[in-house]
Amino acid sequence: MTGSNEKSAGSARRTVGALLFEGFELLDVYGPLEMFGALPEHFELVMLAEHAEPVASAQGPRSAIDRTLAAAGEIDLLLVPGGVGTRREVDNAVLLQFLREYQPLLEYLLSVCTGAGLLAAAGLLNGRRATSNKQSFAWASAQSASTTWVAEARWIEDDRVWTSSGVAAGIDMTLALISQLIDADTAAEVAAYTEYEWHRDAGWDPFARLAGLVP
Amino acid sequence: MTGSNEKSAGSARRTVGALLFEGFELLDVYGPLEMFGALPEHFELVMLAEHAEPVASAQGPRSAIDRTLAAAGEIDLLLVPGGVGTRREVDNAVLLQFLREYQPLLEYLLSVCTGAGLLAAAGLLNGRRATSNKQSFAWASAQSASTTWVAEARWIEDDRVWTSSGVAAGIDMTLALISQLIDADTAAEVAAYTEYEWHRDAGWDPFARLAGLVP
Repeated sequence: MTGSNEKSAGSARRTVGALLFEGFELLDVYGPLEMFGALPEHFELVMLAEHAEPVASAQGPRSAIDRTLAAAGEIDLLLVPGGVGTRREVDNAVLLQFLREYQPLLEYLLSVCTGAGLLAAAGLLNGRRATSNKQSFAWASAQSASTTWVAEARWIEDDRVWTSSGVAAGIDMTLALISQLIDADTAAEVAAYTEYEWHRDAGWDPFARLAGLVP
Repeated sequence: MTGSNEKSAGSARRTVGALLFEGFELLDVYGPLEMFGALPEHFELVMLAEHAEPVASAQGPRSAIDRTLAAAGEIDLLLVPGGVGTRREVDNAVLLQFLREYQPLLEYLLSVCTGAGLLAAAGLLNGRRATSNKQSFAWASAQSASTTWVAEARWIEDDRVWTSSGVAAGIDMTLALISQLIDADTAAEVAAYTEYEWHRDAGWDPFARLAGLVP
């Protein structure tokens, strides 16, 4: 916790940017944003996309965009969701270039689900440990051969690049990050407020076995 | 389960309408929509609001609207979220009238969190059992004196009106409804796909004690 991008305790609010693309998975985005958004004194939420028009999720509902990638401004925490759209976005040079340019400017880069495939395709998981959605693990892990892919993990913390397992796992990763950035009591208060049963153990992952990734 | 609004097994897709208003709670909406949305062969998702413009959540992010209340069309399942905006919407005659007019046309009316306060203000919980968010239980239950408010419950099923506890509880209620409308295996597949630890017991509610509602 000594990098140049770290905000000191009690400093100004952090800006959380959620990177949307057509076919993003709803809960990958709105699970973490619910948790960050419960602490408006600490976090401001900004919806980012390549274009300014509302972006359709994989499930249909569309989200309005606050800033385009070309005018993203200052972002402290960048959240990259998964969803079926990732299969197309791994070939989107604009999005991958945005990730490469922003990563050094961020305090934390976060992915949920197959969002890890986008980080990998951008080269940002080279030499790192990471995880991803369990049912799409083969696809995500194929995006980078120089990553140590961990099949059985709710989320993986590798310095300032955190990757979570599928969909709901992003909520647990977010609460863990709130614990680290603020404190564990605050994260527990958010879990109580949202009536969410928080999994504090990053190694808790019954879904790896369910998906046949571990014996 | 013999009401006139019930769709037969294997019938056409159901339309799930999510009723948005300024200050809705993000996860109250997008938790349930993630679960319904994982089954596009069974459910179509429609975002409803009084006006056509994007609606800002309590946490900030705005959602695009598909249909206004005046042109809502056919809806099978109506989802009413909570959030700080409910404190204003209990005095919104247009929204309450919409709820009263639509309830007889619905297969199921569903609320999450303080959305139960809106159902109660519309008179739709009179003579019914219901629950709501635990930290805002006093406010919600004050909206109807002729409702049996159940403090310790993840969700309550009263015929075709289901109410869930706060925020994340809507996900468990939705999986239970998918079990009932389709089957338990399908609901379990959705939980596995979303890597969500499903609470199948409607009586599971550690948050009632945490909020001091039960000893």
